[in-house]
Amino acid sequence: MKYIIIGAVAGGASTAARIRRLDETAEIIMIEKGEYVSYANCGLPYYIGDVIKDRNKLFIQDAASFKRRFNIDVKVRTEAIEIHPSEKKVTLLDLYTQKTYTESYDKLVLSTGAVPIKPPIPGIHSANVFTIRDVHDTDLVKAVIQNQKVKHATVVGGGFIGIEMMENLTHLGIKTRVIERAPQLLAFLDEDMALLAKSEIEANGVVVDVNNGLSEIRDNADGSKTIKLENGDEFQTDMVILSIGVLPNNFLAKAAGLEIGQKGGVLVDEYMQTSNSDIYAVGDVIEFHHPICNASYPIYLAGPANKQGRICANNIVNGNTKKFNGSVSTTIVKVFGKTIAATGSNSRLLKNHNIKHITSITHSSSNAGYYPGSTPMVIKIAFDPESGVLLGAQIIGEEGVDKRVDVFSTYVQNKQTIDDLMEFEQAYAPPFSSAKDPVNMAGFVANNIMDKVMQIYNPEDAIEISKKEFLIDVRTPEEFEAGTIPNARNIELDELRNHLTEIPKDKTIYVFCEVGLRGYLASRILVQHGFEVRNLSGGYRFWKNTYGLTVGESEKAFTYN
Amino acid sequence: MKYIIIGAVAGGASTAARIRRLDETAEIIMIEKGEYVSYANCGLPYYIGDVIKDRNKLFIQDAASFKRRFNIDVKVRTEAIEIHPSEKKVTLLDLYTQKTYTESYDKLVLSTGAVPIKPPIPGIHSANVFTIRDVHDTDLVKAVIQNQKVKHATVVGGGFIGIEMMENLTHLGIKTRVIERAPQLLAFLDEDMALLAKSEIEANGVVVDVNNGLSEIRDNADGSKTIKLENGDEFQTDMVILSIGVLPNNFLAKAAGLEIGQKGGVLVDEYMQTSNSDIYAVGDVIEFHHPICNASYPIYLAGPANKQGRICANNIVNGNTKKFNGSVSTTIVKVFGKTIAATGSNSRLLKNHNIKHITSITHSSSNAGYYPGSTPMVIKIAFDPESGVLLGAQIIGEEGVDKRVDVFSTYVQNKQTIDDLMEFEQAYAPPFSSAKDPVNMAGFVANNIMDKVMQIYNPEDAIEISKKEFLIDVRTPEEFEAGTIPNARNIELDELRNHLTEIPKDKTIYVFCEVGLRGYLASRILVQHGFEVRNLSGGYRFWKNTYGLTVGESEKAFTYN
Repeated sequence: MKYIIIGAVAGGASTAARIRRLDETAEIIMIEKGEYVSYANCGLPYYIGDVIKDRNKLFIQDAASFKRRFNIDVKVRTEAIEIHPSEKKVTLLDLYTQKTYTESYDKLVLSTGAVPIKPPIPGIHSANVFTIRDVHDTDLVKAVIQNQKVKHATVVGGGFIGIEMMENLTHLGIKTRVIERAPQLLAFLDEDMALLAKSEIEANGVVVDVNNGLSEIRDNADGSKTIKLENGDEFQTDMVILSIGVLPNNFLAKAAGLEIGQKGGVLVDEYMQTSNSDIYAVGDVIEFHHPICNASYPIYLAGPANKQGRICANNIVNGNTKKFNGSVSTTIVKVFGKTIAATGSNSRLLKNHNIKHITSITHSSSNAGYYPGSTPMVIKIAFDPESGVLLGAQIIGEEGVDKRVDVFSTYVQNKQTIDDLMEFEQAYAPPFSSAKDPVNMAGFVANNIMDKVMQIYNPEDAIEISKKEFLIDVRTPEEFEAGTIPNARNIELDELRNHLTEIPKDKTIYVFCEVGLRGYLASRILVQHGFEVRNLSGGYRFWKNTYGLTVGESEKAFTYN
Repeated sequence: MKYIIIGAVAGGASTAARIRRLDETAEIIMIEKGEYVSYANCGLPYYIGDVIKDRNKLFIQDAASFKRRFNIDVKVRTEAIEIHPSEKKVTLLDLYTQKTYTESYDKLVLSTGAVPIKPPIPGIHSANVFTIRDVHDTDLVKAVIQNQKVKHATVVGGGFIGIEMMENLTHLGIKTRVIERAPQLLAFLDEDMALLAKSEIEANGVVVDVNNGLSEIRDNADGSKTIKLENGDEFQTDMVILSIGVLPNNFLAKAAGLEIGQKGGVLVDEYMQTSNSDIYAVGDVIEFHHPICNASYPIYLAGPANKQGRICANNIVNGNTKKFNGSVSTTIVKVFGKTIAATGSNSRLLKNHNIKHITSITHSSSNAGYYPGSTPMVIKIAFDPESGVLLGAQIIGEEGVDKRVDVFSTYVQNKQTIDDLMEFEQAYAPPFSSAKDPVNMAGFVANNIMDKVMQIYNPEDAIEISKKEFLIDVRTPEEFEAGTIPNARNIELDELRNHLTEIPKDKTIYVFCEVGLRGYLASRILVQHGFEVRNLSGGYRFWKNTYGLTVGESEKAFTYN
């Protein structure tokens, strides 16, 4: 058998190596347009940021080691320019000699990845405007930083790569500004969680524009550039990183007549097989049915790409026996001192797909509060109100965020429920967790909501509610004095049983505390005395750091009414 | 309704608080023999070790705050001395006044915990011999350390508390020796993993005796003590910590005629109800059906105790609706720079219960190797050879061990399989994981074993095999020269295809490399050339640090034959 794999990074390299392990006698050819194979593309921003100091560490294998260890023929600087499915041949262009030739195949694997979006904005092709997609891009950016005096950089696009580049440029002492056309950064988060992320970024001296796109890049006489934004604002910068997004690199597949999805990805079935049974595809170039939303999406993630490679190789060699079950989009990004992560679908995506859900916000500590080094985290989960199936989780914190998102990921992948979150048996000793893990706490609170032991209201509605409804801050007078939601009155939890007569029975009572626990206890006391009560999800702390940021000073003056 | 809860730590306090949240009008009395309620008993060793400096941090609630917030009547320094189930009454002894009185109940909850084992060894009741069970014990130990010149301490028993005490005493600069009667430390581990733990402890200057019990404690004239071990060895010490183990504190339950299990725990059903329908029990005092082994065991863990409390309260107030599904014994302990954790059943326990299983050992990095701070971990999993159901996992490493054991815990709890490990979608960015997470890698290797893509041999058998079989070290000549398994010959992986004629076809070939990957690749090449091959699980590195430690110098001399 003769296998050709087009694309020699993540998915392609995994597929090729696994094919060899399963079939020692096969002829395997791997085609790579670039100079490098099997490199650590997720490490590129950190190499630019000098966090990874040794460039050699980015390379896992090279063409020679692939040959030596796997007996795989790797052709670098070679571009596949056409697939001829009926003849089972590929036309290749040697980029060194500029000569074309053809190779036949029994089975072909497409792992051509994705290409960065470069919108037709004036100046976008000028010097010192970069995308970060491969080693070559990275070397260019690194050289410019080292050789020119880059004092200010502009990152266009607040997704993963943009945020990682922003952090790494800041780490190098370069003043950085992030431009995002959408209303928020980090589209995998809900608006409220994205506001927390934005605050963290701004607290580290980075200027962030949201709701504001790039409209022009002009070269200045001194070598700097002027950036013009869609709202008319202008500022000077020395370098521009474009991280607006990527699209599946579907050029070859389209020309070969393979079925392409609505989002531009090559359509594959669960065996990674395209619409042509001799052609498989893996990685960023495909799109795949989303396990939660009834739609197919590209999956721009290295983890799924590597897993698809293994599955694809098994199916190619042994027939279609191993299935890929989709990606639940488990993602994570380090943002200065914070870790921001998510799995499954956020509330915005669920609403777009008309999927009924409840969200719940909880604050927890990374580990036992009495043990040194414990840090807070905020968790927002979304779940089906009837079945309790967990639909997604978002977390922002410091220590242990990566752990909890991985645990939530297993529950989302396996379509498990709030009951499972409650039962989760964490490894507990004081340095690592609490007797009730943050995952358990998220489960307990959601269970109280499902069982109607507690009813909640959401932070985005707090201001509207405060204008019309009876709002009680059940924290201590000291906490109340230091700041509260406009129009709230203060009845401390431990005094609540003595002040029941002051609370109207004919309207819904809205309570809140700092994080949600005392508000819950207050709601239990009031409900059992015949009141209709709602508790603020995430408490004052979450509200203050998200929607509370937009409350003007005049509104705040109402606080002590 | 009137509820009495006996025992006011973890399980008891959780139950009481939840009952109040569900029933504002109930009369709730909580009985506590000690002076303190709802304290952080898992933090006690760390308070002794000055890691937790503020004693107040150990206390979550006190009797007054329970009254104020939950309207719960807490009677401290009060001992329940008899339950009268037919009359639904409890006789209580006020330890201050030494007066007895009775309280009636509608429902009773037993949360009396466990008591430390103190075997009848000469000198065991002498001064400066302590157990660590409550705040009082802790204060005593702390006072002795502060006021007397404790230069040397002896910890009897190498379980959790023993190891945590050993670490904390060492942290204070006290020379420490650990005595364990069993053949290994940390019974939740298999022997090989326990050998790795022992090496880490010894590397930190602690003397460890295994297979050697305490036989006598003698007081010396200078205030020190002489410890005599079962093998006759004697040494001097200043303080003894007994952490031999605990037993369910079943005195009240037994006297009340409640059904007691074979291990001495109060038997409860999945609703936490004892054999008397008006009496429930939670925490260390119960024993419960083990989800993997067909037997019931006590569960001496704070996490399950807290969860049982919540379940118990729901069932007591609302009728038996919420189930406890058992504990998979997910546990973790910090040992100097290492973290040691496990979930499910280890191989020894599975063998004891005649449960068929395969074990597999893998080495992984906590996160991408090219990103700073990546540390190694070794993972041993056990799984059902037919169904692939994961039965247990043990991990030793530094960073990210707590994360992986929690992920494994969800899979063990939900009776999931090796396929699920392979599909696990981790949150991947270079600071947090690799494109293939350690959990995935464990799954991939186990899947290769299940699919017979690779056959393995276990490290405990390596020496016997080396004496009789054809053993190939497929590492580089440099690695081979630096040390190998006796009688191994060296054929480097990348040269293997050129040396096939030197390998006998009439016998099974045993290969190994450093961690297992190159051995796997070698086995794939050989198998496809018609050889019968086994690869060493965990590779040379695991063998060298476990069973290899026992190979004498004379045997090592055979290395270069």
